[in-house]
Amino acid sequence: MASINRNYLKLPGSYLFSTISRKVAEYSSAHPDADIIRMGIGDVTQPIAPAIIQALHDAVDEMGSYDKFRGYAPDLGYEFLRNIIAEKDFKDRGCDIDPSEVFVSDGAKSDCGNIQEIFDINNKIAVCDPVYPVYVDSNVMAGRTGDYDEVLGCFRDVIYMPCTAENNFVPLFPKEIPDLIYLCFPNNPTGAVMKKDVLQEWVDFARKNGSVILYDAAYEAFISEEDVPHSIYECEGAKECAIEFRSFSKTAGFTGLRLGFTVVPKELEAGGEKLWPLWARRHGTKYNGAPYIVQRAGEAAYSEKGRSQIRQQIAIYKENARIIVEGMKEAGYEVFGGVNAPYIWMKTKDNMSSWEFFDYLLSEAQIVGTPGSGFGPGGEGYFRLTAFGSRAGSIRAIDRIKKL
Amino acid sequence: MASINRNYLKLPGSYLFSTISRKVAEYSSAHPDADIIRMGIGDVTQPIAPAIIQALHDAVDEMGSYDKFRGYAPDLGYEFLRNIIAEKDFKDRGCDIDPSEVFVSDGAKSDCGNIQEIFDINNKIAVCDPVYPVYVDSNVMAGRTGDYDEVLGCFRDVIYMPCTAENNFVPLFPKEIPDLIYLCFPNNPTGAVMKKDVLQEWVDFARKNGSVILYDAAYEAFISEEDVPHSIYECEGAKECAIEFRSFSKTAGFTGLRLGFTVVPKELEAGGEKLWPLWARRHGTKYNGAPYIVQRAGEAAYSEKGRSQIRQQIAIYKENARIIVEGMKEAGYEVFGGVNAPYIWMKTKDNMSSWEFFDYLLSEAQIVGTPGSGFGPGGEGYFRLTAFGSRAGSIRAIDRIKKL
Repeated sequence: MASINRNYLKLPGSYLFSTISRKVAEYSSAHPDADIIRMGIGDVTQPIAPAIIQALHDAVDEMGSYDKFRGYAPDLGYEFLRNIIAEKDFKDRGCDIDPSEVFVSDGAKSDCGNIQEIFDINNKIAVCDPVYPVYVDSNVMAGRTGDYDEVLGCFRDVIYMPCTAENNFVPLFPKEIPDLIYLCFPNNPTGAVMKKDVLQEWVDFARKNGSVILYDAAYEAFISEEDVPHSIYECEGAKECAIEFRSFSKTAGFTGLRLGFTVVPKELEAGGEKLWPLWARRHGTKYNGAPYIVQRAGEAAYSEKGRSQIRQQIAIYKENARIIVEGMKEAGYEVFGGVNAPYIWMKTKDNMSSWEFFDYLLSEAQIVGTPGSGFGPGGEGYFRLTAFGSRAGSIRAIDRIKKL
Repeated sequence: MASINRNYLKLPGSYLFSTISRKVAEYSSAHPDADIIRMGIGDVTQPIAPAIIQALHDAVDEMGSYDKFRGYAPDLGYEFLRNIIAEKDFKDRGCDIDPSEVFVSDGAKSDCGNIQEIFDINNKIAVCDPVYPVYVDSNVMAGRTGDYDEVLGCFRDVIYMPCTAENNFVPLFPKEIPDLIYLCFPNNPTGAVMKKDVLQEWVDFARKNGSVILYDAAYEAFISEEDVPHSIYECEGAKECAIEFRSFSKTAGFTGLRLGFTVVPKELEAGGEKLWPLWARRHGTKYNGAPYIVQRAGEAAYSEKGRSQIRQQIAIYKENARIIVEGMKEAGYEVFGGVNAPYIWMKTKDNMSSWEFFDYLLSEAQIVGTPGSGFGPGGEGYFRLTAFGSRAGSIRAIDRIKKL
């Protein structure tokens, strides 16, 4: 008789953003006239840049033409895209990444969720706390985390690395040595960054211990300050210990187009075995490439026009972040992030729990944010706002909060 | 220290189509002027139909507009697409499938590869032999198949169900009861079909034994004959025992656009647990939806114009299949399939092995096909040609083969 993967039953409740969607839908249906300002899910609001729209139209025309139609894409992505990624995102920053080490995909979420498959089931993972839920949940599903401890709000066999105001939301080395270390900087949800010298220490730590760092750099386009690395491969020796995930979602507004990539260096090993052939095999067996038209859109994001248009969009989101950070501080909140990241992280009002504050903001100010506790027990008492709305919406939200 | 998932090392050689690509690339580079006719990978060649191209352009314009831009898609697909799928593909055929049971994805290959994740690692799988490699390989990676037996060319803990000329390439019930049964009809690679009364027997078998059928109906658009079910849900009780995979690749030429869907009925259980919430959770955690523009393209495939244009394209491929089947018979080959499927399956010449025949056809006639043995030991001595080329190419290929 068939039976299910019971690891799925260890997952507490539903996926964070599904729960938020449901609560907002319930509120909307009870208050159909409410002007809800959405600062919850990290979804962009500006339309795709004109240079990219043009590339999409051109590629669509090719798909409708006998001469230029393209069927299955190459398993690992079209060369035109892998080449320009290797050049602009890595070689131009002094990182020696070859196009063959770039795996194009439908987004960083899929890759972050799937990467654990190529590792042994007994590998112990370490995550920041709070953390983007996909890293933990995908390992729960695989059976790598042990049971959920209801009291602690933790999985028993996961190493949680607390990220608090005290350590500037940058984790300290855990006492127990992890096999796999998930790091995301600029960080979701806290908006914190790891300076280059600190990231170098993590690379050294991983090399010394034979750990692999799974580095999520989805928000690198928001980096404003010097000394903040855009890629882990800016650190010496990182090609021997790190996989990096990148996204077009927040860089070029591709949340609805779906494009990302993962870098797996050819020399990277785990326990003496190369990882590149395993990830290539996974891609070839369980995935069939990102759509041609979307890969052409990705290429256009690197063109001169595309880059300049994207930079303007990011500047708008950054200005929103500035408005929110300053406004919340004026409203008396303790606020973090928002400088090198589109996320603003804050302590809740009057020691409310994260979900209490979610309900409070939704019902009293019609603002949707994300409860910090949804990102792990270390997020309890915190709350995340995103800067992806409009300038007008950000100003309106701050006005409402100041009046509460 | 990190270590790899050693199940990956059980996979013999590289993925079938990667090997073929390499061999063809080597031949091309040695013979740069060769006019190679590609009848190997099942990739379409006709451009996307005009009604679908128009829908793509319209959706691209929306993505470039402030008012109409769309970010993240709903986890399980846009309602406009799920509704029309439930209506046209199921309700119109008398199958009671609700839109909420339709999960939109980037293609049947991903879904066929990922579906095994929601089942227990100890579930025993049964596959046809020969078989589409993804079903087996994805289970190897998960550790569900045991080791590879080099002599038999089989994984020790997989139930192989021989599909031979003797049983018309339709499997008999295996002696050992499987937990999960992969069926693909119209079949890849043999082009065989399962009549409705026979499929009903499989549904009854699964219900009696608590097995789950994973039914790949990617080629249903090619069905010509009566009494061949387009969906397993045409059979009584199938909603209690079957998941169905569908693809836009072969139906509407979406191999390079990437769109498919999976039906998981709400009442379907394995060992007393519902499967719908597990697949929904997987989608929500490790996937972020198919691109909006591609989902609009999928919708257009169901419009009156879209359907009529697609029907014409499929008629062209079917005519190719007829040309190949008749031509190969005239050339003295024993030929199967090609009537309800875009695949033509044949015995090799003079008892050559499948790979010998591959090399022979490539070097003597510059024709690329797929060695039957690449689909499992039962495919040894067979060879697959596809009907997805041009009419002229199909005729030229047959001429060359007749002259050998």
